[in-house]
Amino acid sequence: GSRFSPAMMGSAAFARDIAVDTVLERTDAEGVSVGAALDAIGYRGPLAVGSQPLGAFLELHIEQGPILEAEGKTIGVVEHGQGIIWYDGRITGFQSHTGSTPMHLRKDALAALSEIVLAIEQLAITHGPNAVGSVGEAVIGMPSRNVIPGDITFSAEFRTVDAAILETLHAALQEKVREIAGRRRVEIALDLIWRKEPTHFDPAIINAVRAAADGLGLSHRPMVSGAGHDAFHMATLMPTAMVFVPCKDGLSHNELEDATKDDCVAGANVLLHAVLALAGGAARA
Amino acid sequence: GSRFSPAMMGSAAFARDIAVDTVLERTDAEGVSVGAALDAIGYRGPLAVGSQPLGAFLELHIEQGPILEAEGKTIGVVEHGQGIIWYDGRITGFQSHTGSTPMHLRKDALAALSEIVLAIEQLAITHGPNAVGSVGEAVIGMPSRNVIPGDITFSAEFRTVDAAILETLHAALQEKVREIAGRRRVEIALDLIWRKEPTHFDPAIINAVRAAADGLGLSHRPMVSGAGHDAFHMATLMPTAMVFVPCKDGLSHNELEDATKDDCVAGANVLLHAVLALAGGAARA
Repeated sequence: GSRFSPAMMGSAAFARDIAVDTVLERTDAEGVSVGAALDAIGYRGPLAVGSQPLGAFLELHIEQGPILEAEGKTIGVVEHGQGIIWYDGRITGFQSHTGSTPMHLRKDALAALSEIVLAIEQLAITHGPNAVGSVGEAVIGMPSRNVIPGDITFSAEFRTVDAAILETLHAALQEKVREIAGRRRVEIALDLIWRKEPTHFDPAIINAVRAAADGLGLSHRPMVSGAGHDAFHMATLMPTAMVFVPCKDGLSHNELEDATKDDCVAGANVLLHAVLALAGGAARA
Repeated sequence: GSRFSPAMMGSAAFARDIAVDTVLERTDAEGVSVGAALDAIGYRGPLAVGSQPLGAFLELHIEQGPILEAEGKTIGVVEHGQGIIWYDGRITGFQSHTGSTPMHLRKDALAALSEIVLAIEQLAITHGPNAVGSVGEAVIGMPSRNVIPGDITFSAEFRTVDAAILETLHAALQEKVREIAGRRRVEIALDLIWRKEPTHFDPAIINAVRAAADGLGLSHRPMVSGAGHDAFHMATLMPTAMVFVPCKDGLSHNELEDATKDDCVAGANVLLHAVLALAGGAARA
């Protein structure tokens, strides 16, 4: 993770999605605030956040996924950003001895979670290709080899580019969770803790990116971004799009993250040519 | 857990299932050995372990399960002890971003574990009523809300009173794990770390327990013990059986463990009358 959280606070403050004062008060693990850290390096600056007039926004990023690498393409022309729903969940079953509790008298929280994990996976596949769903975290309370798990906390999410599908996934999961809880006689709390609607980038900016890739003779394909980006905040204010380049094994936020110099140069050139084209023919001379 | 592990070392040493010196050398969390602890309270004693001649062994215990309570019975006449197989498992998939990794390119270790959990549950149910199966522990390596779990360690077990069924469960799980690993392109290591064959108590001792319960006018039912007991070690040396009494909610090894005074008195009386009967008519006068 980053030193300060949440991520992308700069663009969020620029887009008035989070108050500037809130950002300045966020602290790192040692209790140092963003404001104090900016003052210490002389980077706070005199202008009011969001006061700079901008005509468009373009962002270059590694894909953070495996698609470009898998298809041997150099440039991802990002057209949409996925909507996201995040859940915090808790399953309360009953801790009991694995040897002396018959199967039909168990309230196994891990078995209930297992059904939820597979249901989320199946719902995402059913509503694909641009829907994904995961359980990323799951912690058994007081785990023991010979104790049936009685308490599990977990996180879950869905992402899809289509707002209607996001709603369908949400409703279907609620229904499935109710069914599992009733059948297995466990309590399942599933709280929606964050929801981001899908982002649809500006056709003119998308076209400028595609044209730049074509002009440079680079292979490209349209893409949906599944990760979070500053561009999603900026897209609420002005015409925006993104350029992706491949990354090794789709790895990101990881010490193994890697992209070739050639791909980075290609992405930077696409960014440059798209910006020049948007700035007007005179600048292309 | 107990101060020293493994559990039931006394009866294990008596039955020569573990060497006496090994027991004496086991240490607690502070590094104090069993031998030093026995010396400190003057309990080591002068006799060689296992040298005392015994004609039979009877053990009274709370059920550690919910069956007697659920059926309103006072005495469990234990006829068998379940065989047990313990596994340590590890699933190696691939950590990647939940948003930018399409469903078909994922190697989700938690989804693989979920299938294993449900397969173990289904195998136990299919081979019931005296078979059980569980995953008690599961830990995701470096979990994060927006990272697909790439590494999970877990423990699993089967218990059943029938040696042939224990073998069937073991073989079926190996096959299922191979299938899941291949289909999901993850690595699954499943190591059998302990195996205990089923225990079948002595018919004469079982009859003595049942007759004692009948004689005292106490409701009873035959039972299989799913937990571990000293009696299993002793049964390798001499005629053995056990008496169970109900415990609240089937809870054991837990601060909420509870049994009524009436049930404990009933169990003690069954134990007394069974021992008197086995010791011969003269002692019953």
